[in-house]
Amino acid sequence: MYFDKKFRSQLKDLFLWRRDVRRFKSRPVDENVLQEIISQAMLAPSVGLSQPWRFIQVDDKDLRQQIIHNYEVENDKASKIYTDEKASLYRSLKLSGLKEAPIHLAIFAEHESDIGSGLGRQTMPETIHYSVVTAIENLWLAARANGIGMGWVSILDPIKVCKTLKTPDNWHFIGYMCLGYPQEEHLDPELVRAGWEKVLDTSKVFFKK
Amino acid sequence: MYFDKKFRSQLKDLFLWRRDVRRFKSRPVDENVLQEIISQAMLAPSVGLSQPWRFIQVDDKDLRQQIIHNYEVENDKASKIYTDEKASLYRSLKLSGLKEAPIHLAIFAEHESDIGSGLGRQTMPETIHYSVVTAIENLWLAARANGIGMGWVSILDPIKVCKTLKTPDNWHFIGYMCLGYPQEEHLDPELVRAGWEKVLDTSKVFFKK
Repeated sequence: MYFDKKFRSQLKDLFLWRRDVRRFKSRPVDENVLQEIISQAMLAPSVGLSQPWRFIQVDDKDLRQQIIHNYEVENDKASKIYTDEKASLYRSLKLSGLKEAPIHLAIFAEHESDIGSGLGRQTMPETIHYSVVTAIENLWLAARANGIGMGWVSILDPIKVCKTLKTPDNWHFIGYMCLGYPQEEHLDPELVRAGWEKVLDTSKVFFKK
Repeated sequence: MYFDKKFRSQLKDLFLWRRDVRRFKSRPVDENVLQEIISQAMLAPSVGLSQPWRFIQVDDKDLRQQIIHNYEVENDKASKIYTDEKASLYRSLKLSGLKEAPIHLAIFAEHESDIGSGLGRQTMPETIHYSVVTAIENLWLAARANGIGMGWVSILDPIKVCKTLKTPDNWHFIGYMCLGYPQEEHLDPELVRAGWEKVLDTSKVFFKK
């Protein structure tokens, strides 16, 4: 299987145009498209082929409201670590699209599963979580290729998310995703546009030994 | 930016043909290609734009030998959790390409960095690690699109990896990657071909609430 120059260039565009989306249109996402991008997420690597990813699509209004409340409480707490201008800037940022997004997807890692028979995760059991995160990145890219934006909401009390969704004890919460058609498309991260942070140069992160 | 049907089909092929590669040719990887795929990894999402990914390309023979020794000790320990046929099967598996791979890349997450000013990671500080993992998945896909295979070696004592590479105290080891041109290409995971594990159906991992 050979990937040509044109595809490689489009793949780079996909990486560039994949953004954390927090502003969604109300237009619904087709069920088949959602199933297709989830099946592509499941093509991600996993330690010892453990495939620990577990997805819950949250449609119930009351459950969504509990997640939104969880976010609002935690975001209010988080805002208090900043002072002065940084605090005003923080409060001006839109950090989730929970209220508007047509699709809510809670994503978990199943612990203590026999799948994969423990291969590759004796010294670093956290690789079970990492496997789920590679699936989330596949999901993000597959969604964007289909014109769908995704936003990762991390400002949540993870214990409360599990209580709200009544998940099994051996499910570990990884992240809560909002998906839908984006109101805007951008090449640069919203936090760059808002003046919160800058993009690092390779020389700051790549070293040789 | 619109991605057409042909690109979407090729992207699915990329997910399918991205494999954990452990059998490498000796052919070297061009320095510019490596820099390009690392720059594409850096287009990954990161919590609060923290960009915590740190890469060390390990070229030094003695350092590589210490990593190989670390792997051999831990793999021998890991093999002892299996009995009977599973033990024989485990010992027959090739679980790393550390000796052959032209490129060794150790990947870390920088903790306690001011970059991103803590945004989005107050309730779930582990999202710093997850951000690095999304970069690793980008790296894997960008490498494969360029005909380069990657394998993630997780059977390592992470503390010893940090000691070997004398990393700063606030660098947390995430994973050790082998990269190079693959000897073989496959659509199915090696652990499926070897009879170690099967691929799960969506119905086992996707639920609605």
